[in-house]
Amino acid sequence: MKIVIIGGVAGGASAAARARRLDEKAEIIVLERGKHVSFANCGLPYHIGGIIEDRDDLILQTPHSLKASLNLDVRVGHEVTGIDRTKHTVTVKELETGRSYIEPYEKLVLCPGASPITPPLPGIDHPSILVLRNIDDMDKIKAKIDAGVTSAVVIGGGYIGIEMAENLSGRGLEVELVEMVDQLIPPLDREMARELENHVTAHGIRLHLGTAATAFRDISGKLSVELKNGELLKTDLAILCVGVRPETQLAKQAGLKIGSCGGIKVNSQMQTSDPDIYAAGDAVEVVDTITGLPALIPLAGPANRQGRIVADNLMGIASKYTSTQGTAIVKVFDMTAGMTGATEKTLKRTGIKFCKIYIHPSSHAGYYPGATPMHIKLLFDPDNGLVLGAQITGFDGVDKRLDVFAIAIRAGMTVYDLKDLELAYAPPYGSAKDPVNMAGFVAENLLKGNVEFWYAEDYPGKTKDGLIIDVRGPQEFESWHIPGAANMPLGKLRKQLTELSKAKSIYLYCKVGFRSYLAYRILKQNGFKSVATLAGGSMTFFCYHNTKINKL
Amino acid sequence: MKIVIIGGVAGGASAAARARRLDEKAEIIVLERGKHVSFANCGLPYHIGGIIEDRDDLILQTPHSLKASLNLDVRVGHEVTGIDRTKHTVTVKELETGRSYIEPYEKLVLCPGASPITPPLPGIDHPSILVLRNIDDMDKIKAKIDAGVTSAVVIGGGYIGIEMAENLSGRGLEVELVEMVDQLIPPLDREMARELENHVTAHGIRLHLGTAATAFRDISGKLSVELKNGELLKTDLAILCVGVRPETQLAKQAGLKIGSCGGIKVNSQMQTSDPDIYAAGDAVEVVDTITGLPALIPLAGPANRQGRIVADNLMGIASKYTSTQGTAIVKVFDMTAGMTGATEKTLKRTGIKFCKIYIHPSSHAGYYPGATPMHIKLLFDPDNGLVLGAQITGFDGVDKRLDVFAIAIRAGMTVYDLKDLELAYAPPYGSAKDPVNMAGFVAENLLKGNVEFWYAEDYPGKTKDGLIIDVRGPQEFESWHIPGAANMPLGKLRKQLTELSKAKSIYLYCKVGFRSYLAYRILKQNGFKSVATLAGGSMTFFCYHNTKINKL
Repeated sequence: MKIVIIGGVAGGASAAARARRLDEKAEIIVLERGKHVSFANCGLPYHIGGIIEDRDDLILQTPHSLKASLNLDVRVGHEVTGIDRTKHTVTVKELETGRSYIEPYEKLVLCPGASPITPPLPGIDHPSILVLRNIDDMDKIKAKIDAGVTSAVVIGGGYIGIEMAENLSGRGLEVELVEMVDQLIPPLDREMARELENHVTAHGIRLHLGTAATAFRDISGKLSVELKNGELLKTDLAILCVGVRPETQLAKQAGLKIGSCGGIKVNSQMQTSDPDIYAAGDAVEVVDTITGLPALIPLAGPANRQGRIVADNLMGIASKYTSTQGTAIVKVFDMTAGMTGATEKTLKRTGIKFCKIYIHPSSHAGYYPGATPMHIKLLFDPDNGLVLGAQITGFDGVDKRLDVFAIAIRAGMTVYDLKDLELAYAPPYGSAKDPVNMAGFVAENLLKGNVEFWYAEDYPGKTKDGLIIDVRGPQEFESWHIPGAANMPLGKLRKQLTELSKAKSIYLYCKVGFRSYLAYRILKQNGFKSVATLAGGSMTFFCYHNTKINKL
Repeated sequence: MKIVIIGGVAGGASAAARARRLDEKAEIIVLERGKHVSFANCGLPYHIGGIIEDRDDLILQTPHSLKASLNLDVRVGHEVTGIDRTKHTVTVKELETGRSYIEPYEKLVLCPGASPITPPLPGIDHPSILVLRNIDDMDKIKAKIDAGVTSAVVIGGGYIGIEMAENLSGRGLEVELVEMVDQLIPPLDREMARELENHVTAHGIRLHLGTAATAFRDISGKLSVELKNGELLKTDLAILCVGVRPETQLAKQAGLKIGSCGGIKVNSQMQTSDPDIYAAGDAVEVVDTITGLPALIPLAGPANRQGRIVADNLMGIASKYTSTQGTAIVKVFDMTAGMTGATEKTLKRTGIKFCKIYIHPSSHAGYYPGATPMHIKLLFDPDNGLVLGAQITGFDGVDKRLDVFAIAIRAGMTVYDLKDLELAYAPPYGSAKDPVNMAGFVAENLLKGNVEFWYAEDYPGKTKDGLIIDVRGPQEFESWHIPGAANMPLGKLRKQLTELSKAKSIYLYCKVGFRSYLAYRILKQNGFKSVATLAGGSMTFFCYHNTKINKL
């Protein structure tokens, strides 16, 4: 068996290594256009920021090490320029010498990845505008900073954009960040990004949300970034982080099927429309776990697993890739944000019915030092309670709960299952009722009719004809309350019931939603017909309506 | 509906609160023998240690606060001395006044908990021997330390014993710990506790494992603890942490069924043998998720959830408690240790077939600062790959992986599912191939015949007739190797194959098991019939054979 693998980073490296482990006798050639294989692409921003000090730490393997351990023929600086499917050959260009040669294959594996999008804007080829894809890109950006530039504009507020902004800021640069969508991390639902924005701003990064770069100009040696909103940002350096595009040129030239999202089309064995050609990683189109629709979800974990699955199938071991649920996480200075499964915006866009709840539990037992609040949004099926998606932001323990939700989705669990999970509890790590259990309790209460919610977006519209009742204490009420709300603290509610009109709809709220849930139960069981409690309380209300967080 | 609940901490408090939320009109009386309800019993050692500074932080609710928010009639210092099931009454003794009264109930809920075991040893009633169950106990221990005692002996090396030892040590006391079983944390498999023992010892705690206290004596004001091995420990203070026993006296007196393990027998609705009496928490016997056998597993999470389930069933909401899998975790100075599901010793004891693997992955991407090794033991069904149990020790990220394994067990997942889990990855949080995925990969390889293991316990016995080959580098080999092993570094193995005899069994090993797995693949595919690789590598070997860890 002779296997040729195009691309030697995540998917390609995994496929090559697993193929060798399964077949000691196969001839395995890895053709990598860049200078490095199997490098830690997720670590690049952190070497620029000086967090990962040693550049060599990012280079996990070399052609030499892969020859020694796995007997792989790894050729860096070798670009494949064409595929001849009939002859079963690829044309390879050795970049250093310019020499071209033909390499035959029995099975071909495409792992070209995705390339950073460079929007066709005026001045986009200015030498101070850079992208970050590989070690070379990283070296270029780092060299500029080491040379003493003092300001940077990051274009794009997704995961990579935020990591870049944080690391540039960590190097002492004045950093501005421009994001076309009116929020940081566009994949998240809008309200879930708000606290991150406050946090990033508090760390000195100036955000320009809901506007885009329209042109770049050189003004006496400084780069000037023109924004759609008319602002002009002068900077030493711009980093483009506006997303990636699957590298499908070779696949297209070879006549392989391309999917509706623009990625290489593969079946569940990661086989392209040509049975002798497999593909894995950011260039392929996957099935979205929740929507069932084709999607481009470039993530390191899936790329690695797909590479392994390719090798299995090449070697006759039946192995399937089912779907990608889009579990993602990002460090945002001291905060962590992430998601798994579908967001509200995805569910709305695809017409999938959902319920949602918000909770704000402690990362661990409140009485043990270091507990911090986290913010969880859980989406689930209104009929059967199936978990559809979760988003979390916070300071500690976010990654753990994301993983729990991720596996719940993978296992096809419902919110009823969440409440019964037996998770590891000791005060430094969690609570006897873990945040995930709590999410299950609240969701169950909603589905079983033990509580009804109103949502921040119902204000002021829907709430106008009713009474908004704040059941927090008088001091909390005084410090801030929803305009139009009356105060009726929970502890006195039972005695004040006669003061409330049963003719009006009552919209309860408190800080996080627990006291108002108790109030809801009291009112409902005392004959009040139209009662609802604010999902996520004033904390979610603040995030939705962008009231200044310090007022909370 | 009139509900009387005996015990107002975890299960009792949860039952009372949920019952009120479901039924505003019910009369709910909570009778608590102690002075506090709903206190943070898991936090007690940490207040003694000064980690939780404010004692009030441990008192989560008071009778007053529960009256205000939930209209509960909470009576602390009220001990139930008898149950009359025919008359539907309990006899209550008000401890402060000595007055007794009769309280009728329609439904009774037993949440008496479990009490610390006090072994009937000579001198056990010495005033310097204390237990830790409630706030009073905590106050007593703390008072002694505040008064300046300088040494303590902790009897019992389970979870509470370790927390006590750590916190006493944190207060500057000389601490010795005595554990009858020859390991710390007896529920763990022996080899998984070894590194914890080294860590605890490195923190200045003297361990006496595999021996027991046999008598206590007062020797001129100092307490003297006699050990079975003849040692005599002189100390200011002894804390008994030798386990707990379910409080079943009331249930027995009332003629309720007691299970084979000595806990109150309940059905899946948490109903005792009397349909009007429910029970929850540490006093009840549960079903073990993995073995299906009755078990006593006193844990805060299950107690809280059982309380909630009791309330649901009282109020006509069908709600079931299925089983307890024994997910537990403990902080051990800078380390974390925990388990979920069954251990090897449990599986052996109950005759359940299993396979086991060991891995030692990084807590997060090795190139990102702060990555630390963790040690995972995974047990699974040899036929279908069902996950049966996991144990983890390490410094960071242990709680997260424990939770993932815990939910995998709850979801009935197999090791094949583990490898496909899409977990949250960014360099500060994990690896593209998470430790849990890695465990899945290794287990799959074993089940599919891509690897065969030998185990640390096979040495020296089974390995005597074969060749032990160390495939690490020559420097690693020189610094330490398994006595009798030959060195054949992986990178040169393919060229040295002819030096190896195909007639002998070959026992490969490296540090963690990865290089030796590659070596296994090379040998097997080159016609070597009898080859195995050491599960968990020399790291697990060290833990099993207690070779000095610093030799690694």
